[in-house]
Parts: sequence; structure tokens; C-alpha cells
Amino acid sequence: MTFVKRTELQMFDGRQIFYYDSTPVDRTAIDARPFEPRPLPGDMREDVLTGEWVAMASHRQGRAFLPPKEFCPLCPTKSDFGTEVADNNFEVVVFENRSPSFSAPSDQLPPETIQTLGRCEVVAFSDHHEGSFGSLDFAHMRTVLAAWIDRTREISKLPYVEQVFVFENRGEEVGVTLNHPHGQIYSYPFITPRTSKMLQVAQAHFDKTGVPLITSIIDREINDQVRVITQNEYWIAYVPYAARYPFEIHVAPKVFVPDFAELSEVAADAFPEIAKEVLLRLDGVFGIPMAYIAAWHQAPVRKGRDVLGLHWQITSVRRAPGKLKYLAGSESAMGVFIMDVKPEASAQQLRDVQL
Amino acid sequence: MTFVKRTELQMFDGRQIFYYDSTPVDRTAIDARPFEPRPLPGDMREDVLTGEWVAMASHRQGRAFLPPKEFCPLCPTKSDFGTEVADNNFEVVVFENRSPSFSAPSDQLPPETIQTLGRCEVVAFSDHHEGSFGSLDFAHMRTVLAAWIDRTREISKLPYVEQVFVFENRGEEVGVTLNHPHGQIYSYPFITPRTSKMLQVAQAHFDKTGVPLITSIIDREINDQVRVITQNEYWIAYVPYAARYPFEIHVAPKVFVPDFAELSEVAADAFPEIAKEVLLRLDGVFGIPMAYIAAWHQAPVRKGRDVLGLHWQITSVRRAPGKLKYLAGSESAMGVFIMDVKPEASAQQLRDVQL
Repeated sequence: MTFVKRTELQMFDGRQIFYYDSTPVDRTAIDARPFEPRPLPGDMREDVLTGEWVAMASHRQGRAFLPPKEFCPLCPTKSDFGTEVADNNFEVVVFENRSPSFSAPSDQLPPETIQTLGRCEVVAFSDHHEGSFGSLDFAHMRTVLAAWIDRTREISKLPYVEQVFVFENRGEEVGVTLNHPHGQIYSYPFITPRTSKMLQVAQAHFDKTGVPLITSIIDREINDQVRVITQNEYWIAYVPYAARYPFEIHVAPKVFVPDFAELSEVAADAFPEIAKEVLLRLDGVFGIPMAYIAAWHQAPVRKGRDVLGLHWQITSVRRAPGKLKYLAGSESAMGVFIMDVKPEASAQQLRDVQL
Repeated sequence: MTFVKRTELQMFDGRQIFYYDSTPVDRTAIDARPFEPRPLPGDMREDVLTGEWVAMASHRQGRAFLPPKEFCPLCPTKSDFGTEVADNNFEVVVFENRSPSFSAPSDQLPPETIQTLGRCEVVAFSDHHEGSFGSLDFAHMRTVLAAWIDRTREISKLPYVEQVFVFENRGEEVGVTLNHPHGQIYSYPFITPRTSKMLQVAQAHFDKTGVPLITSIIDREINDQVRVITQNEYWIAYVPYAARYPFEIHVAPKVFVPDFAELSEVAADAFPEIAKEVLLRLDGVFGIPMAYIAAWHQAPVRKGRDVLGLHWQITSVRRAPGKLKYLAGSESAMGVFIMDVKPEASAQQLRDVQL
């Protein structure tokens, strides 16, 4: 049984912060920064051409943008500089985003406003400013996973949240504005366009076969072999058959679960090993840290929980050491991806990396 | 009646090239480069998680990447360097893409291959290496439009094409690999995900109101006024109510037409004026050339032609002189856009530009 202690404290402006520790350490540090009011929710607008929601969050335009290391808001607080984390050390910490795209309801907005309800959190993977999720040791990765599981469970209880999205953007090439190793959790008051589409397809597959789609996909990948990167008893990592990015890796638990909340203890304990291997292989392809978006697909909170399975989608736009793939006309305006690299070839490149 | 002469010739490898001239000039230049076989179509793969097609075009990985001006393949041929355009000058020229993502059927592929059928063309806006679509004079812009109209009509006749997509990527920030002013035409053997969604929404609107959706949108924008940038008798330009990008402009003909093929002569003649104003305003916001994707939405060839209207969607990821908007976790993995800039504010910025 993995031990993880959670300590909940409050930040200077009333936001919640959660320390996750694999040792029974006491966390009592007080966030002594002077009070500032929190931003109100933005408004949601329907794109009438597609029926999709767009979140207007104009307070985000002025947010921190690649501050130098000494002003990193995710490092522990130093005597002369108060950061988002009041303690002078931590293992893993999660707190509410200071500039959230989605937030709790406010009664200070005109009643006709469709508020951007939800919750946005930041997950600092470590108190070290350098490194990344993949450079953590196994035990530390397991604590991050414990935080993802705990946060998914808690946020799923909010009545205005329909979907919890755990992700990590890594690298300035994908727009990261803080270099400190961290991920984020967004939660939405609707089912997102991507998830809606996946739900629809997964439901049709389930109705036809009685098997969750992700289970059938894993069976196919094990059968085809050519796109499998690595596996252990509980997880499998593969390049999907119709990958959209020069490097795209899916990592899925072998036993179907809708989300982190239902992940078994044994599967959780087996995750760090495969996560670390996959991320080291990704960085090994060109011998440089790869920019990526690592997105956890989870079933919505109240829908499709028997058909849509938890899986981790890591996509990188790097197609060669000096070249990025851009989402230009076809991808951006039409949603049609053009792939320069065969999935079987990128899987081979990933397998060939010497660890 | 606008005069445009089209001359069809053949390139060294059998590809078609079309010269469009507003004067009755003779075009006979021969493409004398040594023969090379053309690449075979790639294969299309279904992303089983979403039901969407991904085009595999691995021959594109080696394509020209930001060559220096003297080796620009879109400049006219010089005595010592044969380019894609055999003549030593031109007004507007369209030719089949040398590294197409979609192409004519081939009998040289195994029968189980799902070929990436379609047609990809390059539209060189001018024989000048510098400049952009917006810097052309009105008559020259009108010739480009004549080429778009002609190519849409012709490509729509191909039995394996379901949708014709005319677009321009501008700026290295959106992955442009050739700086010479040019656009592209993609045509697909299926209706794209974005267009499918738009069709579904537009059909529902039409069934309910009897009016094409774009017509209702234009009525609303004229009524609201705050997001309108400019208009003339035949066209209107506005920032959409639920814009997804820091700068996003839609330009639509006031009279509904499904595509270029059905655009009236008077509307076509009135386009250059509004196009130039919009693009000058866009470059004027920060006083720098704005990277953008300019996408022409057209109804599919055989479906939804009474409900889906032609319009031009210009999106820019530039949110400030030194800052770009990136499509990170929420946008890229979930399809949910977070906007930092209110559409009404960006419309004001665009209107305030001194021309």
C-alpha cells in the first residue's frame, strides 16, 4: 500500500493548496503575501458555426510569462520572495490556478453571463526548478499519480463539473510560460468536443461488440506488435495506428478503467516504470528534451463511464532536431492531419533508443 | 466583366500548371527540368478513437524548407535555375503540388491501401518574391480570386473529391516553408471533421429557420455592430462573437453562396477592396506582418450546398508583439479554446488602425 499524506492549507487569497508527501511530514507554512482579490469567472460563448463553447478569460493576458528562475512562482518560498508555495520545500503540491480559465460560480456577475464554471489547478511535480516529470524517481512519480487520483476524485464531486482533464505542456515550443516542472488540471462545465466525439465512437463500438474501445485497441496493438514501444503487467505504450503527430504515444492501463478515481492500487504502482521509460525514450530520439503535450483522457464524470477508458496521449510536434510540425491550414481549419512520419517508423525509433 | 485568360501547360514531370493573366499574354515556356517520377499517393488511416481520417504522406518529410531567395521554387525560372514556374514572369500561377498530401488514384499500390485521393495545388500570388496577398493591387487580387473560382469549379468535377479547401498560411510562426507569397488548395476525398460539424449545425439552423446560418450570423453582426470591422455593398468583415484566436476575422459575401463556383461577378469584383483593408488592418495592429491562417470555408461538392455558406476565416496566433498563442493542452487535446482577448476589444483595435 503506497503511503501518501495530503495536507490542505489556504493561500493568501483564499485559494486551496494541497501538499502530497510520501513521508509523514508536517506542513504548516503560512502564505503571508498581502491579500489580493481573485479574478471573477469569464464568460462562455457559443461558437454558433460549430455549437462549441469558447471560454473568454481576458484576465489571463497579463499572466506570468517565462520569469527568470529567481522569480519562479512554483519554486518554494524563499525568505525574500513569496511564491505560490509557502513552504521552503515540498514533494508534490497542487493549488488552484491564480489565473483560472474556469472557476467557481460568482454572484458578482450580471445574471445573463454564462460563467466559465469549473476549476483549474496547477500541479508542481517537484520543488526543483529544473527537470521534468520524466526525470523524477519512481516513488516521486507515484506521489504525482496519487495527487492526480485524489484531485480527480475531489473535483468530480463539484456539481458544475462534467469532465476533469489532467495534462502537462512541456517546452516553450508548445507555449509553456513557466519552466518549472509542472502539469495542470482543467475541469469543464461541459463535455469537450474531443471527448464528445470519442464518447460517440466508443459507445457505438461498445454497442456493437460489448467491449470498451480502448480494450479492442490494446488487443490490436499487441497483435500487430509493430507499434508497441513497451509494456509491463499493467500498462502498455504504443504509437497509435493513425497517429497525428511526428511522435505520438498512447499509454493505457491493460484493465479498463474510466478514470484515475477507479485505477487500482497495483496498476498505479506499476505506472512510474512505464512512464519513465516512455519519456526517456522520447527525449532519446533526438538527444534533446522533447516538447510535448501529455493529455490524460478520462471518461466524463456522469456519462460514458462504461465505454470511455482512461489513457495517456503524449504528442510532440518535433519532427526533426531543427523542425517542428505546425498545425497549419488543413489541421487547424479543417481538422485533417497530414503525417510525415509513419507510426511504425516512429515506434521503431522510440524502441531503438538506448536507455 | 473582368477579363482573365487561363493558359494550361505541363510541367517537367507531367503535373498541370495554369497561368492566369488579366492581359492577353501568350504563355508557352517549357519546363525543361529533367524528368522525375511523381510520388505515389499515401495511405489514409482511420483514427478509431474519433472516426476521423489521418493522411500518411511520408514523402513530404524531405520537402523544401525555407530555401534562400535565389533557390525559391515559386519565383519565375532564371536561365541558371529552373523553378516550378517555367516562364520568366507571371501574374498568378497555379500548379499541382510536387509533394501532395492528396493525389489522383494510382494502380501501383496494393489493393488494400486506402489511398489519399484528392488533389493539392499551389497558388503563387505573384512573381515577386516579397510581399503577400494583402500587398497586391486590386486588379491583381481579382486575378487571384479568378484562379480560386476556376480551380474550385474544376476540382469539384473530380469524382473522388468531396470538398475543396482554399487557404493561405502566412509566416514562419505558422510553419510556412516557403516565403514567396502563395496559397494552397487541398481537396479531400471525404468531408472534413470541421466541415461535418459545421454542416450539422447549419442544417439544424436551416431546418428551424429556413435561413442559411451565415445569413443569420451576418444579420446579428450588423445589428450588434461592435464586432464589425468594415463592409461594402457585397461583403462584410467582422470578429466572430466566439472568436478562438487573439485575432480572428471572418469575411463573408452578403448574399449567400455555397462556394466560389457560385460567387457572382459583382461580388467577386467587390472582394479586393475589403480583402486589402482587412489585411492592412491586421498588419497595422502591431505594425508588423501578422502570421495568419486564412481559410476559405466552402460547402462540400455534393452536400449541404443550400445551408453552408462561403466565408473566409483569418486567424492569427499573435496576441502581442512578442507573444504567440499556442494550442496547448485544452485546445489541442480537448478542442476547448481559451481566449485572452475579448472579440469586441480586438475588433476595436482593428478598426482603430490608421490606414
